[in-house]
Amino acid sequence: MSLLKKLNARATDTNQTGFGTNSEYSGGRFYNKNGSPNMGLKGIGLLESFSIYNTMLKVKSWKFFTIILCFYGLVNLLFAGLYMLVGAEHLGGMEGTSDLKRFWEAFFFSAQTLSTVGYGHIYPSGMLTNCLAAIESLIGLLSFALATGMMYGRFSQPKAYIKYSANTLFAPFKGGTAVMFRLVPYKHRNLSDAEVKATLAMKVMEDGQRVNRFFTLPLEISKINALTLSWTLVHVINETSPFYNLTREDLISSSAELLIFLKAYDETYSNFVVSRTSYEASEFIYGGKFKLMYHPSDDKEHTILDVNLLSQYDKVQLPDGIYA
Amino acid sequence: MSLLKKLNARATDTNQTGFGTNSEYSGGRFYNKNGSPNMGLKGIGLLESFSIYNTMLKVKSWKFFTIILCFYGLVNLLFAGLYMLVGAEHLGGMEGTSDLKRFWEAFFFSAQTLSTVGYGHIYPSGMLTNCLAAIESLIGLLSFALATGMMYGRFSQPKAYIKYSANTLFAPFKGGTAVMFRLVPYKHRNLSDAEVKATLAMKVMEDGQRVNRFFTLPLEISKINALTLSWTLVHVINETSPFYNLTREDLISSSAELLIFLKAYDETYSNFVVSRTSYEASEFIYGGKFKLMYHPSDDKEHTILDVNLLSQYDKVQLPDGIYA
Amino acid sequence: MSLLKKLNARATDTNQTGFGTNSEYSGGRFYNKNGSPNMGLKGIGLLESFSIYNTMLKVKSWKFFTIILCFYGLVNLLFAGLYMLVGAEHLGGMEGTSDLKRFWEAFFFSAQTLSTVGYGHIYPSGMLTNCLAAIESLIGLLSFALATGMMYGRFSQPKAYIKYSANTLFAPFKGGTAVMFRLVPYKHRNLSDAEVKATLAMKVMEDGQRVNRFFTLPLEISKINALTLSWTLVHVINETSPFYNLTREDLISSSAELLIFLKAYDETYSNFVVSRTSYEASEFIYGGKFKLMYHPSDDKEHTILDVNLLSQYDKVQLPDGIYA
Amino acid sequence: MSLLKKLNARATDTNQTGFGTNSEYSGGRFYNKNGSPNMGLKGIGLLESFSIYNTMLKVKSWKFFTIILCFYGLVNLLFAGLYMLVGAEHLGGMEGTSDLKRFWEAFFFSAQTLSTVGYGHIYPSGMLTNCLAAIESLIGLLSFALATGMMYGRFSQPKAYIKYSANTLFAPFKGGTAVMFRLVPYKHRNLSDAEVKATLAMKVMEDGQRVNRFFTLPLEISKINALTLSWTLVHVINETSPFYNLTREDLISSSAELLIFLKAYDETYSNFVVSRTSYEASEFIYGGKFKLMYHPSDDKEHTILDVNLLSQYDKVQLPDGIYA
Repeated sequence: MSLLKKLNARATDTNQTGFGTNSEYSGGRFYNKNGSPNMGLKGIGLLESFSIYNTMLKVKSWKFFTIILCFYGLVNLLFAGLYMLVGAEHLGGMEGTSDLKRFWEAFFFSAQTLSTVGYGHIYPSGMLTNCLAAIESLIGLLSFALATGMMYGRFSQPKAYIKYSANTLFAPFKGGTAVMFRLVPYKHRNLSDAEVKATLAMKVMEDGQRVNRFFTLPLEISKINALTLSWTLVHVINETSPFYNLTREDLISSSAELLIFLKAYDETYSNFVVSRTSYEASEFIYGGKFKLMYHPSDDKEHTILDVNLLSQYDKVQLPDGIYA
Repeated sequence: MSLLKKLNARATDTNQTGFGTNSEYSGGRFYNKNGSPNMGLKGIGLLESFSIYNTMLKVKSWKFFTIILCFYGLVNLLFAGLYMLVGAEHLGGMEGTSDLKRFWEAFFFSAQTLSTVGYGHIYPSGMLTNCLAAIESLIGLLSFALATGMMYGRFSQPKAYIKYSANTLFAPFKGGTAVMFRLVPYKHRNLSDAEVKATLAMKVMEDGQRVNRFFTLPLEISKINALTLSWTLVHVINETSPFYNLTREDLISSSAELLIFLKAYDETYSNFVVSRTSYEASEFIYGGKFKLMYHPSDDKEHTILDVNLLSQYDKVQLPDGIYA
Repeated sequence: MSLLKKLNARATDTNQTGFGTNSEYSGGRFYNKNGSPNMGLKGIGLLESFSIYNTMLKVKSWKFFTIILCFYGLVNLLFAGLYMLVGAEHLGGMEGTSDLKRFWEAFFFSAQTLSTVGYGHIYPSGMLTNCLAAIESLIGLLSFALATGMMYGRFSQPKAYIKYSANTLFAPFKGGTAVMFRLVPYKHRNLSDAEVKATLAMKVMEDGQRVNRFFTLPLEISKINALTLSWTLVHVINETSPFYNLTREDLISSSAELLIFLKAYDETYSNFVVSRTSYEASEFIYGGKFKLMYHPSDDKEHTILDVNLLSQYDKVQLPDGIYA
Repeated sequence: MSLLKKLNARATDTNQTGFGTNSEYSGGRFYNKNGSPNMGLKGIGLLESFSIYNTMLKVKSWKFFTIILCFYGLVNLLFAGLYMLVGAEHLGGMEGTSDLKRFWEAFFFSAQTLSTVGYGHIYPSGMLTNCLAAIESLIGLLSFALATGMMYGRFSQPKAYIKYSANTLFAPFKGGTAVMFRLVPYKHRNLSDAEVKATLAMKVMEDGQRVNRFFTLPLEISKINALTLSWTLVHVINETSPFYNLTREDLISSSAELLIFLKAYDETYSNFVVSRTSYEASEFIYGGKFKLMYHPSDDKEHTILDVNLLSQYDKVQLPDGIYA
């Protein structure tokens, strides 16, 4: 029986992934391992598609601080030039004997104005210079508000700290076989109302054309009230499962990809956080059973969760022969 | 068969638009193309209906900064006047030889106080002037907090960056005809839990009176887990569809308007964003099929989405003859 | 037939109001007209029940600014005292010739430090005074952060700007009678996903005891996608309605109160806002029909909503004789 | 009949607690009385599992301010050292006659720079010192933004202020027995859309192994529109209840634990707040009835809630003999 026939004998597609079915026109996996969509964008101007806010929230810290430092330097260079243009004699308290020295004094006067430190050993005296200084301090207040807002935004941004097991296991379950993966929150452990959606994506030949098929996988428990320990997600392979009767080769040849989406309420942020990942067919293990991740503390009064064991499993025999 | 009879043979109205049915009393389309309601308000005082917060969040950037600059200037003018009133001699370090020059010195001293730069080459010396300066710096801190808060609020405000196709197409679909439009997120591509509601609004004659009728349109897929690529929304015209058996003329004469409402969770903001638009009957295309918007990257490892193609379609023949 | 028998012939109570049924132990109406619960709290310490955050967000503006000004003054008085205690000679640049004058100079030096203006014509010179000044500027930065945060919090706090009609009307509706009230958003008109819950509360005699009964009222339309115009809420009085067969006297003698709860998503705040109100039996009008609140603009291109008409209605005859 | 048999005669487990069933591997109760999970974490680096944000939001206030003060001191020490390294002669206005005195002058100059007070009686004069000062003021602005952001974040963090009754009562209810506990909001009384989930956790022997069993308890009313008064939660013990036919000894020997989870929308924060607690079998009272917590005010116009009575109950006889 062909892969297509096997699939069509199952429940129909329930595609809520947001991906289309035209397989020929897409390349590579759907989601990268880190959960970002594997997709580029074109036909739109850089200015329109570029989000300063998103970028400043997501760039690495050292880049963020470099950008701020450069901005600080550039604005000071600009204003130093303007002060020199108006005339260094309008800055009282200057001691520089050459134009270059005076330029640097103007530069540091600008820095003191922009940051509103304003020591005052150098001070503006003429109308124009005073105006420039008044505007510069306004610019300083506004631009530092943006910079510090973004910094705090980065610091306080809701983010899911979730680790996923390295593999998806085909494990024995209640006399049959189930597909299992697990996850653990490793930083914030006050997550509530957690919900996982799992979708199987496959590329199958249909009427001589490669089309994407998506199947939402029913999970034994897909919602929990509190996510504090590890959570093992279980999809039972029964007659209505898209995995039913599919061999390893079927899954690999159809570039099967298991798309995972998690949403939970994080009490630290008082907000929802989301997390995504995907497993490719090469990451499926046939005949594995996750090792228990927790054990009682020495005084038997608490439970200890060992994150090191997240991806560890024992080799086991599957009841179903088709994965041999 | 009259338009009213055709419609009444369909499912009953499901009006959740928030608009009433008294057609005679409303004018023009329901929503403007940019998604704002086409409505004015009267009978309420400006003060009561005016929201400073909303206005400052939504005005154009140049207006926003002009307002702040004007406010800065006005407050400084006011305080300069007060300092002069108390007596310029209570400002130590002044060098101005005329009242006007002293006024400007007081003005810039005010600016240095308001922005808390405080160079100190001019400084308050009497009781009253000291009081004024202390209060001015307090006002400065508080009002700059508002200004910078609003600026950052503008910068970080959750906003849906969605482009819609220019037209709604009547396209062949599974042997019949379907109504289709599509959309694409062009800035933030980490939207999840996206949901679209589409409503058909029509103005029909009933008992000699023009009344508004609203029909919620069932969509093939109205919710998706992730909105990263383009999304084509499909309403099948079957016997229960309000479009069933309606001719072009029916739709135009009844000022048919397709109201679109999108809601999605944007991970950048950790918040929901909403977007609206509407299509008038003149924007319906009979016999069109959207061109595919994506293709594999050169290395076949990614999918590339071409936003330029959003509104492009191929002319096709419709199976249904009534739109000829 | 007694009131109790009439009610018991209806659907059973569906009490989701959070109020108990022991009527003897509660006093007055459930909700005040402005939507706040009509309830006091005792048996708990002031410190524990007092929320600074809530108070500072909700107090009138003039109180808020008075509190901040007083705080500013008090901290400066305190630090002025400390500077004097350490010794006025440790503040360089002082010109005061008496202790009182020096105290005020220290007071204003403190203000310049707290607000980080720091002119510098007066400056700390000894170890202790320097320490005090360094700590004061730290305190200034932290406490102004709280003050400005609260101010911006007040400014940007999500709030529902909703006006309700003054009365609830018993109006003719589809051959029978319906209970109607209406509301209008008057400041922000970008509300979506609006939902109203209406509950009828009554105090009835049961086995010689007065008990509270609560009935959730089914509404013709209780959810709308967008709340931009006025919204008339309609509860039809059919056989399953708690109003069925109740006379005016029944409603007044049982202190009937109609509790209204509205929830909507406000795009300005990117957040949900809630609003409450209640109508007492004395605010019920028997035989009224709301006037239309909107009309086309002069150019017929927009719809104009006239908020003045919100509570206006025409006297009409009710089909049902029991309210005569 | 054994405990296991009794339970298996009930409805099957509905485990949404996020806890596993391997009882041998967990220690102690599931949740602590204050609602935090009774669990430790290992096998993960401190850096990876430590959340600065979460910690700074949750530490006690005196620790928070100590950390900030220490940080302020340390940064100033560091920069004082740097200024001395470059040379004290590059700080104009210094009066110190010994290296130590000059160090402290540099220290306080640093404090004035970091806090942007900048009196200016000491000021940077050389290139390097000017650079250091410019960078220090930048660091000051950025780090104070974090500090004040966190302080305001602590201040404004959504938090549920809920008190729970000390005990869970087995009380007579409609001819049978019900399990009851109650709660009261004691600070913010503008909570809406409140929802409680109660789960009974038990450790029972099954095939010679101790396993965790979880039962979601149906509640008479589990959702209310407004939480302003006290709220008594009621679970009726009928044939489908896991409590049915269980004796005191059954509950104690199986370490029965009642897990409570509350979620509500707090209008003060415009956000959801959550609260958790748990009752151990030793906290169950057999034959108790909560005293009424509210009474009318003296003028009969308001209702007064007495929080002192939250945990008080009257001893009563249970109809069911099994708890004797």
